Amino acid sequence: MDAPERLHFEPDAEGDPAALAYTFGGFAPLVSVRPGTVVSTWTMDCFAGRVRSTSDLVSQVCDPRYLNPQTGPFYVEGAEPGDTLAVHFIDIVPRGGRGVSTTVPLFGSLTATAFTAMLHEPLPERTWVYEIDNAAGVVRYDALDSPFTVDLPLDPMHGTVGVAPPLGEVRSSLTPGSWGGNMDTPEMRAGTTCYLGVNVEGALFSLGDGHARQGEGETCGVAVECPMDTILVVDLIKGSPTPWPRLEDDTFLMTTGSARPLEDAFRIAHTEMTRWVQELTGLSAMDAYQLVSQTALTPIANVVDTNYTVVAKVAKAHLPGARAMGGIHDRLRLVR
Amino acid sequence: MDAPERLHFEPDAEGDPAALAYTFGGFAPLVSVRPGTVVSTWTMDCFAGRVRSTSDLVSQVCDPRYLNPQTGPFYVEGAEPGDTLAVHFIDIVPRGGRGVSTTVPLFGSLTATAFTAMLHEPLPERTWVYEIDNAAGVVRYDALDSPFTVDLPLDPMHGTVGVAPPLGEVRSSLTPGSWGGNMDTPEMRAGTTCYLGVNVEGALFSLGDGHARQGEGETCGVAVECPMDTILVVDLIKGSPTPWPRLEDDTFLMTTGSARPLEDAFRIAHTEMTRWVQELTGLSAMDAYQLVSQTALTPIANVVDTNYTVVAKVAKAHLPGARAMGGIHDRLRLVR
Amino acid sequence: MDAPERLHFEPDAEGDPAALAYTFGGFAPLVSVRPGTVVSTWTMDCFAGRVRSTSDLVSQVCDPRYLNPQTGPFYVEGAEPGDTLAVHFIDIVPRGGRGVSTTVPLFGSLTATAFTAMLHEPLPERTWVYEIDNAAGVVRYDALDSPFTVDLPLDPMHGTVGVAPPLGEVRSSLTPGSWGGNMDTPEMRAGTTCYLGVNVEGALFSLGDGHARQGEGETCGVAVECPMDTILVVDLIKGSPTPWPRLEDDTFLMTTGSARPLEDAFRIAHTEMTRWVQELTGLSAMDAYQLVSQTALTPIANVVDTNYTVVAKVAKAHLPGARAMGGIHDRLRLVR
Amino acid sequence: MDAPERLHFEPDAEGDPAALAYTFGGFAPLVSVRPGTVVSTWTMDCFAGRVRSTSDLVSQVCDPRYLNPQTGPFYVEGAEPGDTLAVHFIDIVPRGGRGVSTTVPLFGSLTATAFTAMLHEPLPERTWVYEIDNAAGVVRYDALDSPFTVDLPLDPMHGTVGVAPPLGEVRSSLTPGSWGGNMDTPEMRAGTTCYLGVNVEGALFSLGDGHARQGEGETCGVAVECPMDTILVVDLIKGSPTPWPRLEDDTFLMTTGSARPLEDAFRIAHTEMTRWVQELTGLSAMDAYQLVSQTALTPIANVVDTNYTVVAKVAKAHLPGARAMGGIHDRLRLVR
Repeated sequence: MDAPERLHFEPDAEGDPAALAYTFGGFAPLVSVRPGTVVSTWTMDCFAGRVRSTSDLVSQVCDPRYLNPQTGPFYVEGAEPGDTLAVHFIDIVPRGGRGVSTTVPLFGSLTATAFTAMLHEPLPERTWVYEIDNAAGVVRYDALDSPFTVDLPLDPMHGTVGVAPPLGEVRSSLTPGSWGGNMDTPEMRAGTTCYLGVNVEGALFSLGDGHARQGEGETCGVAVECPMDTILVVDLIKGSPTPWPRLEDDTFLMTTGSARPLEDAFRIAHTEMTRWVQELTGLSAMDAYQLVSQTALTPIANVVDTNYTVVAKVAKAHLPGARAMGGIHDRLRLVR
Repeated sequence: MDAPERLHFEPDAEGDPAALAYTFGGFAPLVSVRPGTVVSTWTMDCFAGRVRSTSDLVSQVCDPRYLNPQTGPFYVEGAEPGDTLAVHFIDIVPRGGRGVSTTVPLFGSLTATAFTAMLHEPLPERTWVYEIDNAAGVVRYDALDSPFTVDLPLDPMHGTVGVAPPLGEVRSSLTPGSWGGNMDTPEMRAGTTCYLGVNVEGALFSLGDGHARQGEGETCGVAVECPMDTILVVDLIKGSPTPWPRLEDDTFLMTTGSARPLEDAFRIAHTEMTRWVQELTGLSAMDAYQLVSQTALTPIANVVDTNYTVVAKVAKAHLPGARAMGGIHDRLRLVR
Repeated sequence: MDAPERLHFEPDAEGDPAALAYTFGGFAPLVSVRPGTVVSTWTMDCFAGRVRSTSDLVSQVCDPRYLNPQTGPFYVEGAEPGDTLAVHFIDIVPRGGRGVSTTVPLFGSLTATAFTAMLHEPLPERTWVYEIDNAAGVVRYDALDSPFTVDLPLDPMHGTVGVAPPLGEVRSSLTPGSWGGNMDTPEMRAGTTCYLGVNVEGALFSLGDGHARQGEGETCGVAVECPMDTILVVDLIKGSPTPWPRLEDDTFLMTTGSARPLEDAFRIAHTEMTRWVQELTGLSAMDAYQLVSQTALTPIANVVDTNYTVVAKVAKAHLPGARAMGGIHDRLRLVR
Repeated sequence: MDAPERLHFEPDAEGDPAALAYTFGGFAPLVSVRPGTVVSTWTMDCFAGRVRSTSDLVSQVCDPRYLNPQTGPFYVEGAEPGDTLAVHFIDIVPRGGRGVSTTVPLFGSLTATAFTAMLHEPLPERTWVYEIDNAAGVVRYDALDSPFTVDLPLDPMHGTVGVAPPLGEVRSSLTPGSWGGNMDTPEMRAGTTCYLGVNVEGALFSLGDGHARQGEGETCGVAVECPMDTILVVDLIKGSPTPWPRLEDDTFLMTTGSARPLEDAFRIAHTEMTRWVQELTGLSAMDAYQLVSQTALTPIANVVDTNYTVVAKVAKAHLPGARAMGGIHDRLRLVR
């Protein structure tokens, strides 16, 4: 293997917040990358760094137009509709030693929201600050209303990874869908390859929303949010479309569905997995449905965003001989 | 610890099928047990043994009135509304060396159903037979339409565990709810303690629907169904209600929600977990919500039954000092 | 037409509340009727008369075991599984000159509930009293917190009409489903014929939950609840099953679906209507689907009960020549 | 009243289909109008005229990028975020004497879709052609598979009416939401005033998707689609935001919600109605909730688009003294 091309990209975190991308689609690419390039960059947290202490409340310090800024978009050379973009995460490391989480009025899974509209007053708005110790691999939870504290395992990931959507749509970086976006799955960690169908020339890939860790489902709607130093390699699978984002790590093949109600997200993820297993093993549709039924793991990714996300996982050990996406994950996992 | 009382209960699997229980509630108890008793028994498979080969189709060999027969009900002495029944599974072992799975017309998560009513013809009806090797710990999947075969890990569990419902209702053993029932979660394995709120005198506990293994979500609606030899210990927590079934194993506390749409099942499980964490740690409601948000695992149990089931899991390691249900799991896990 | 047989049935409203039926199924019939009989009876309100003034709050004056008492069950002679019960409402008249409505903690469509579980405190619990003027045909709404008052048209109906469910289930009178039950549709008014599939011998028909009027959707979960003097005629269509409740009045054919999520209730009602139109007109399935698409009216009945109910209506004028259920509605509407 | 300014706008229906707007947002305005202007224009049908006979199937004759072309956008002078656009429909008349309806593979309410993903084959794809007689006020349904035919009442309306969305999003004209868009409610007929919150300077109003008639719910996903000659008056309510589209006709106030699942669409519409009633009458929130509960009508608009739409209607007769939006409907209804 030749040494890969390398690119460092520095987002303009200090400039005019209006100059950053808060959407997938609708924003001109900032930089161009050739397939195979190792990109090192960093991402701002979902609050653009404006929530800094337990007294900073999102509704007071943040501008709703400038939530979840993305690093990018990257124009991937040669990417065309019908191709699949492969993004392998080499390293995802919290930057700055602190993360924050909050409640946000009328946002989250255990509260009335703008869509699950009710007559309740919003739940209390609070902010938690987590110390992050990269060396020890822990994030420290400190309760606000009692002295309780506990160290939780660090598990850094990106909540938001995506490309420009199809049909000329421009979607908020707070929304997940077939283009990726704000899926908020903890599976998007270092060691994982993410496959995204390309909808427009150049793909227009961007990423953000680093989480030092999150629970599955992201119950309150906000993870341990932090800026992130990230190294990834971008590659391209020509002539092979991917209708919904897929992931692969050393152990699992994964499909995603992002929709409402949550059972539709489940149905998409599992229909996609059934088709993928069928294609990789030569099984009939009904045989693949049966094998998925007995082997799938089904972590919920989020039940808080404008679409909900479900992940279906099948261990590669249960699919002897299967080789996904031409074996690209096995190749990219060796890139350093 | 004194030697526990022991009871062997033999279900009448050879008699009139109409004499078995297919509901929670509405059926007189068959036997009485004292709290603390170790019960050894066995359960028929969900098809009452009538699906025996790949040419047996459910719609042809089964009577819809006699699906998912339960072993029990057991009358638990001293159990009253407001108490919690604790059922600890000591051993769950497939019986007979074979399991079956099927598709069933208009049943499953990737098909139109009687409720998700559509104009499609039903998907094809098929039956798979799995060889089960208890010693090797594997179940063998054999494809029907191609020579593909693979050994999957054995992971025996009960799909259906419950008590009589509240408000005089009688519910089919195919339905999960606040009384337990057909939750179809793989967490109901040996080593797990299941907590069920008591709604009627004697609780009227029963169980069935053994699975040699299942994927989370039980995609096609049918796991690797088999009769099961089961040893469990029944205990009682007086004066402490449990609104929705909870589970505990050596590593996790778990709550369940069974409802439609799937997001309501999620909401129930996570509201219950938030309240449980709050109670066990002394955290405020918002602090507990935050801790659950960063620590919960969220496997979907089923998206196929008349209610869908979601499980929320929080590692006990993240709740230092917490001791659930008076520490009864730690006591019951030592019973042999 | 011969003079029909007549029966007056008096519910035991003054006796032990535990002696009344609060379920469909699970309760022995109180009286037997021959098909064709005109039954005059009355029903208690859903609170069993315990909410009498604006200071009576449901959570304080009602026993949750004794909500929504039903008049019946009636054993219909000759009714067997596979038959359809026809219940034609001749007259439904509020009794006593007053109705009440309330909010109930964690119940309703614009609030967190036991199933749409959230961390909010319940909404305020309030009670409204309506004066009912049968002669003028109005019910008077009086605001609690300001002097606003308005007369609304009287439109009396029964929220709850049903038979014993299939598969040995016993369901709370608060729940609607394929057996009818708490559908809460304003279409269940005098002049309407309700068709219910028979699941057990004798059908075990009962009714209750009179509303002086309600909005579609029954937004807060409680209509203008009042006792009701009701005259109906019971008839039987032998050998013709009805999978989900259907209604007919002089203008419309109507189907119902009761399920969650609400789109499943819609799907059931419209699949049933498509099949009914197909059967009545000889149209192909796709032609019937098309005709329903351009002609159905779709009032939501309730989004508050343990299942939600949607009604699909097609004007008989759009189905020239169609004659539903052997023309029984045209016959029953003449009975006095 | 002075004679209003008048504008005729001719869409470029014969030019490059890529030059038309298929989104809300993301498209430069084609013409500017002053508030108070009477606009006469016409709209292409949702298939851009490419479905012309029963042998034209959507999947064969249409390009998915060019579905549901909009007439506009119109730049409304003086419109700024925080204002409300009022669009009063003076006349909506089918153009050309024919309408078409179709099934579309994996689209509709009684079929698996791209989101309610299943393993079924798509339903059959068919096309129906309707003769429209404007003078007689009827559209003629002709069955494809049998000689059945019936005249249905003409009830012309626009399925799609909207403005640019907030937060820089660009949304397909096939999607409804807070910006209006593809709501598909038959209430959008001549005589109705539609209120839309302005999100960007100039509002960027457009409309399309004429229906000669449709059933509520738009069951198969396609109404009687036809080009439409439309006369409307555009006006502006400064400094008064409207979070979700509202409608008013001579009899009713109406709110809309567009979301998934369908109960969230219901919740939005009824929360909005409760707040509107509260604001118009001075009732407290709980009193308004109660009054809406007893008076709302709840037609489902669509259960087929990427969001589902529910309309809540309250008769103005039940709100004595209420005067919505400063009485603008009463003024616009007199414009000719």
